[in-house]
Amino acid sequence: MRIGLLTGGGDAPGLNAVIRAAVLSANYRGWEVMGIRHGFVGLLGECDVAPLTRGSVSGIAHLGGTILRTTNRGNPLCFPVRNEDGSYSEKDCSDELIENARERGIDALIAIGGDGTLRIALELVRRGMKIVGVPKTIDNDVSCTITTFGFDTAVNTAIEALDKLHTTAESHDRVIVMEVMGRDAGFIALHAGVAATADVILIPELPYDIEKVCEKIMARDRLGQNFSIVVAAEGAYPKAEGAPDPAHPHSRRAIRAGSVAERLVGEVHDRTGKECRSLVLGHLQRGGMPTGYDRLLATRFGSAAVRAIEEEAWGYMVALQSPHLVNVPIAEVLREEKRVDLAHDVVQAARWTGISLGD
Amino acid sequence: MRIGLLTGGGDAPGLNAVIRAAVLSANYRGWEVMGIRHGFVGLLGECDVAPLTRGSVSGIAHLGGTILRTTNRGNPLCFPVRNEDGSYSEKDCSDELIENARERGIDALIAIGGDGTLRIALELVRRGMKIVGVPKTIDNDVSCTITTFGFDTAVNTAIEALDKLHTTAESHDRVIVMEVMGRDAGFIALHAGVAATADVILIPELPYDIEKVCEKIMARDRLGQNFSIVVAAEGAYPKAEGAPDPAHPHSRRAIRAGSVAERLVGEVHDRTGKECRSLVLGHLQRGGMPTGYDRLLATRFGSAAVRAIEEEAWGYMVALQSPHLVNVPIAEVLREEKRVDLAHDVVQAARWTGISLGD
Amino acid sequence: MRIGLLTGGGDAPGLNAVIRAAVLSANYRGWEVMGIRHGFVGLLGECDVAPLTRGSVSGIAHLGGTILRTTNRGNPLCFPVRNEDGSYSEKDCSDELIENARERGIDALIAIGGDGTLRIALELVRRGMKIVGVPKTIDNDVSCTITTFGFDTAVNTAIEALDKLHTTAESHDRVIVMEVMGRDAGFIALHAGVAATADVILIPELPYDIEKVCEKIMARDRLGQNFSIVVAAEGAYPKAEGAPDPAHPHSRRAIRAGSVAERLVGEVHDRTGKECRSLVLGHLQRGGMPTGYDRLLATRFGSAAVRAIEEEAWGYMVALQSPHLVNVPIAEVLREEKRVDLAHDVVQAARWTGISLGD
Amino acid sequence: MRIGLLTGGGDAPGLNAVIRAAVLSANYRGWEVMGIRHGFVGLLGECDVAPLTRGSVSGIAHLGGTILRTTNRGNPLCFPVRNEDGSYSEKDCSDELIENARERGIDALIAIGGDGTLRIALELVRRGMKIVGVPKTIDNDVSCTITTFGFDTAVNTAIEALDKLHTTAESHDRVIVMEVMGRDAGFIALHAGVAATADVILIPELPYDIEKVCEKIMARDRLGQNFSIVVAAEGAYPKAEGAPDPAHPHSRRAIRAGSVAERLVGEVHDRTGKECRSLVLGHLQRGGMPTGYDRLLATRFGSAAVRAIEEEAWGYMVALQSPHLVNVPIAEVLREEKRVDLAHDVVQAARWTGISLGD
Repeated sequence: MRIGLLTGGGDAPGLNAVIRAAVLSANYRGWEVMGIRHGFVGLLGECDVAPLTRGSVSGIAHLGGTILRTTNRGNPLCFPVRNEDGSYSEKDCSDELIENARERGIDALIAIGGDGTLRIALELVRRGMKIVGVPKTIDNDVSCTITTFGFDTAVNTAIEALDKLHTTAESHDRVIVMEVMGRDAGFIALHAGVAATADVILIPELPYDIEKVCEKIMARDRLGQNFSIVVAAEGAYPKAEGAPDPAHPHSRRAIRAGSVAERLVGEVHDRTGKECRSLVLGHLQRGGMPTGYDRLLATRFGSAAVRAIEEEAWGYMVALQSPHLVNVPIAEVLREEKRVDLAHDVVQAARWTGISLGD
Repeated sequence: MRIGLLTGGGDAPGLNAVIRAAVLSANYRGWEVMGIRHGFVGLLGECDVAPLTRGSVSGIAHLGGTILRTTNRGNPLCFPVRNEDGSYSEKDCSDELIENARERGIDALIAIGGDGTLRIALELVRRGMKIVGVPKTIDNDVSCTITTFGFDTAVNTAIEALDKLHTTAESHDRVIVMEVMGRDAGFIALHAGVAATADVILIPELPYDIEKVCEKIMARDRLGQNFSIVVAAEGAYPKAEGAPDPAHPHSRRAIRAGSVAERLVGEVHDRTGKECRSLVLGHLQRGGMPTGYDRLLATRFGSAAVRAIEEEAWGYMVALQSPHLVNVPIAEVLREEKRVDLAHDVVQAARWTGISLGD
Repeated sequence: MRIGLLTGGGDAPGLNAVIRAAVLSANYRGWEVMGIRHGFVGLLGECDVAPLTRGSVSGIAHLGGTILRTTNRGNPLCFPVRNEDGSYSEKDCSDELIENARERGIDALIAIGGDGTLRIALELVRRGMKIVGVPKTIDNDVSCTITTFGFDTAVNTAIEALDKLHTTAESHDRVIVMEVMGRDAGFIALHAGVAATADVILIPELPYDIEKVCEKIMARDRLGQNFSIVVAAEGAYPKAEGAPDPAHPHSRRAIRAGSVAERLVGEVHDRTGKECRSLVLGHLQRGGMPTGYDRLLATRFGSAAVRAIEEEAWGYMVALQSPHLVNVPIAEVLREEKRVDLAHDVVQAARWTGISLGD
Repeated sequence: MRIGLLTGGGDAPGLNAVIRAAVLSANYRGWEVMGIRHGFVGLLGECDVAPLTRGSVSGIAHLGGTILRTTNRGNPLCFPVRNEDGSYSEKDCSDELIENARERGIDALIAIGGDGTLRIALELVRRGMKIVGVPKTIDNDVSCTITTFGFDTAVNTAIEALDKLHTTAESHDRVIVMEVMGRDAGFIALHAGVAATADVILIPELPYDIEKVCEKIMARDRLGQNFSIVVAAEGAYPKAEGAPDPAHPHSRRAIRAGSVAERLVGEVHDRTGKECRSLVLGHLQRGGMPTGYDRLLATRFGSAAVRAIEEEAWGYMVALQSPHLVNVPIAEVLREEKRVDLAHDVVQAARWTGISLGD
C-alpha cells in the first residue's frame, strides 16, 4: 500500500503533527507514504511529489506551518490553463490528476484541508479516487466535528494579545479594538473574548448596533473603569446595513483585513470622545507552535486518517465527537455551515459575566 | 437569594475564573454571593466568610490559585476535635456547618472540588443543604465530564517541560525520565507524552515491564537516536510487583513524589548503561495562569453552576458533555472512577506513532 | 520624608515593578510614598494623589501597565487652559504644581518617564523641586543608559511574532512585512530581526533602497527559499525621498502606524510579483507581563531611585552602565539622542548572517 | 581558510545560534566550517567531524541544545585509555588531536564552552593550535564578560516556575522551596528571586542561618501572608557548617541535585510547623528555546568569534563588556572566579524590597 498526503488551503498550527502521525501510523502497517506539495496542484503537470519517511517527519510535531507547503489557489477541477492567444480559461484537470496519482502508484489519499479542499476531495472520490479527509480550519467552521486542530492555538494567541492590550488600555484610559479571524463564524472572537474577559464581542452571527457598543463603553466609564476592550471578528457588521447580499452568499469573503477594526475605532471615538486604538491580529493567528491540545488532536487525526484508509472509508472525514474520533461522510460535512449557536452556554456565559455582544 | 461559594482540595488553574463567573452570573440575577475560605472548614466554628462583589473578582480570571484559599485537609463529617485530655477524635460537624450557613443567610452553595469535596457535598445535600458541585481535578479523573479546567494547563506545562528536556537529552545522549501527576489515572502522562512525542509513557492503568522500557531505549540507540524521553505518571508501577493490595484500594495515594522517577532512573541505567537523569514536575503542574481552554471552560462552569442553582439541581454537578454543559447527579459521578481507556484512540495513536507503553 | 512617585508618557512593561521597588525601598528607610496619577497632571488642580503602601504594591511586579496610570498628554509647563471665550491657550502651571506638592508634604519626587517627562522634570528642578528621574522607553532611545526596562519585553514580543510569521510565510511562499515601534531609533527592529533571523531589517538610521530589498527577496527565491521576512521600524523611510525636513526634526513623530508596512507590501509585490502580507505589531509591544530581565532591571531602578533621593541627586537620572547602576545628569541625557550605531557589532552580525539592511 | 567548531560541557540555550552565526559569518568571508561533535573528543581517534554548511544551520537559531552534541566528560589532555590488562589510565592525547585537526585541514578552531573547555583550549593554544573561545555558562560564572547566552533563558525559566509556585503556595498557605542551578555562584537564584519577588534567597556566596530563614517566614505569617517562597542555589549551605574544605576547592561540585531543597523543607517544617514543599528545577534550566536576549547575544558571539579568528586572536575569548564585544585573554578569564558581589545593587535591591538572604 502506498498512500499520498497533501495539505490544502490556509495553513493552521498542527498540520505537521497530522503529517507526522499519518506517516508513522502508515509505516506501522508497513505502508509507504508520498508527500504531495502545494495541495492537489502537486498532482498536476510534472507533479511535486516525494517520499515521506520516518526521518523526514522527525522532530516536526511542534512546528507551525506545513512541510508540504500549501496554497489557497488552484482547484484542479477548474484549473487556470493558458490558451494559445495568451488568455486563460478554466479546465477540469481531474483526469490528469487521477492518472498522475496512478502512475506514481498512489493507492489512496489523505487530504487535509478546509471546505474547499474537502469539496474537491469529494468530487474526486465520485470520479473513483480513494480519499479520506482531515478537517482543517482556524475558524472552527467545519461542521460534524466538535473542533479541529489550530483553533485552540489561534484562540490562545488571541487571548495572549488581549492580555497585553488590557494592561496598556487600562494605563491610558483607552478603548482598544482587536480584530480577529472569522469571516463567517465568530468562534475565535467569542472564545477568546470570554476567556480574556473582553467588554464587547462582535461576531458575524449577531449583527451589532454601534449605539449598544458605545453604551457599554460609557457605562464602564461611569463605574470608573475608563478603558474597554472590544474583540471583533473580521466578518462582524452593523445591523443597520443588513446582511450581505443573499444572492452573493460569499460576499463576506471579500472583506479586507483591518476594515472592521478601523471602522469601529472611528465610530466609537466619534460617539464617545474616548481615545481609541486598534490591533489587527492577522497572520499571528495562523503561525507558530501549536498548543498541547492541538498537538494531541492533530496526532490523533493523523493516526485516525490511516485507520480510515484501512477501513476503506472513501469520501469520509475523521471528526471529533468527544470523547471519540469517528468517520463522517464529507457530503454531510459540506451540507451545513457551522456557526456560533446563539443559545449555546458560551454565549450565555458571555452575557452573564457582563460582556456586551452589541445587540 | 444569597449563595455561598467554596473551593476544596488541591488547587487547580482556573479556580479563580470559576469564582469570577459565578459571582458575576449571580449578580446578573440580583443575587448576593458569600465567599467561604479554606473549603467547608470555613463554615465551622467562627466561620471564615466574606461577601464577594464585582470588585473582589475583577481581574482575577487569569490568575492561578484560588482567592478563597483551599485545603486538602478538614472533612467536616469527621473533623478532628480536641478532647479534654489533649487527644484528638473525629466528630461529625455537619449540624454545626448547616446551622452556620443558615445563620449567615446562605440559601444555597456552590462547592468546587474533586472527589473528596463532592462526596462531602452529597452527604450535606442528604442532610438538607442545597448544594451544586463544580468538578475540579488536575488529573482529569472525575467521571461524567469529558474534562475539567486545570487539566489542559497541566498538560501544557508538562509538554513545555518535555520540549525543554528533549533538546538537552539529545545534546547529551541521555535518557531523561519526567514524573508527572496521576496517582490513579494516567491522563496527564498520556496526553503530554503523545503531544510532546515522548518515547516511553508509563501510566497506572497499564503496569510496566522494565525490560520492555529498556528494549525501546536500546532500539532507539541502534537507530542512532541516542537519547530517550520517558514520561511516567507518579502512580505507574512494575507489572512484576502486582497491583497494590486490593484490600487497600487507595494504597497508591501514599506514593511519595519522586519515587517513580528515581526508581526508573536507577533501573534504566543499570540495564542499559546509559546516562540517566530525572525531573519531578510536581507543583509546577498546579500553578500559574490557566490556558485559554481552561479559562473558557472555568468561566462556563461558573456560569452554569449559577444556572444549576436557578434550576434547583441540588446534588448535581455541572459537567462537559461536548458540546454542551449538563447537570449530572453527584451520586453517579462518585459511582465510578475515571481511568484511561486502553482501547481509546489516544492510546492507539501513541502505539502507532512508535511510543512504548512499557507493555 | 515623604516622596511622590509618578509615571509619564506611553506605558512600558516594568513600570509596576519600578513602583513596587521604590515604595518598598522607601518604606525600608521609614519614608512615606504618595502615588501621583496620570503623570505630572496629577499635581495640578484638585490633584490626583493617594498614599502608596506595602499593601498597594503587593503582587504587582509582574503586571504590565502602571497602577498610577499615565498619559502622553499634558505638559504642566504649557498646559492647555480654557479662556473665557471658550478658546484654549497654553499656560505655565509649574508654580501651581510646586505649590500643590508642598501642600501635600511631598519632599521629593521620582519621575519615571521618557524624554518628555525628563525634560519637564529638569525644568522643575531648575525651579526648585527635588526630583530624580527613572528612564522609560520602549524604543531604547534614551541615552546614557545601556538599556531600560520594557525594551527587552518589546523585543521578545516582536521575536515571538516573527517566529509565528516565519512558519506561515514559509508554508505559503509569501513575503511578510512586520512593522514594529521605532520612529527615530531602530533598536527593536534590529534586535528582534537579528535574533529571529529575519531576511531584511529596515531602520530609520539607514534609509532603504527598495531595489536592494527586492534583490534580497529574489535572491532567496533563486535559492529555493521562496519566502522572506521583512522587519521594518515605523520610522524607516526610502533613501530616495531624503530625510524628513531638517527644519522639522520631529516630523517623523507624525508617522501613522501601519503606513510603512502598507507601503512596503505594495512596492515589494509590484516589483517581485510575490504574494505579500503585513502585520503591524502596534500596542502588543507595550503591554503584558515584563520579561525576567525587565522585572529585574525595573526593580533595580526603583531601588536605585530611592538611593538617589537619599544622595540628594536632584536633576539626575538612574542609569545602567553595566554592570553598575549610576546617576547621570538629566541635562546630559537630553543633550544627545540615542540611535543605532551603524558600526556596532549587532549591525555587523546582521550583515554577516546574511540579513539585508536595504542599503 | 577552514575553521573547526565545537561545543563542550553542559548544554545551554543559545549554542545553536552561536553555531549558525559562526558558520554564516565564516561563509561570508568565503571560509569553510567543519563541525566537531561531542567537544574536543570529536578530534580523537577516528574523529567525528563533518562539514557545516548554510543548509545545515538553517532554522536552528531558536532551537535549544546543540546540533554538534556535547559532553561533560572527556578531557583530551588526560583522556582515559584502556591498558592491555583491561584497566584504564589517563593519557595526554593533545598530539593526536593536533595532528588530526591538521590532517583534516582545520586551520583554526572556535571552542564554545565553560571553564573546563576554555582551560583545554588554552593548553592547546600553548601547544600551537589556533583557537578562539566563546564563553558558555548557565550559571553566569565565567569572568571578564558581563553575561553569557543561556543565563537569561535559565533565569526566565526559573521566574516562570516561581510565578507558578507563587499561586499554589498562596492558595494552600504553604512554604515552597525551589532549588536552582548554581554550585559556586548564586546568580540564577538571585536574579530570578528578585525578579519574581521571592521571600528568601539563599546563595553559595552568603552562607545562611536557618533561624533567620524561619524568622522571615514567621514574620510574614504574622502579617497574614501565610505562605513563603524560598529560592536556593544548589550550592547554598548553612553558615554553621563552615565553608567546604578549602583544601578541596571544588568539593561543592559533588553536590547531589535536590539535597538543598530536601534539607530546607525538613528544617523549615521542623522549626515553623508549616506545610512545606519543594521543587528541583534541574534540567529545565538548560533546555528549550533561548530568550530573545540569548538569541541575540549568541548570534553576536558567533559572529564575533569569526572576527576574532580574522584578527588572529589565538587564546582569546569573545566577551560582552556592554555595549561592546571585546576579545579577552583566556588566561585572564581563568585567573579569577566570577561570584555574586555582595555589594552589588541587585543584592541591595533584594534587601530593600524585603527579601531575606538568610543572613
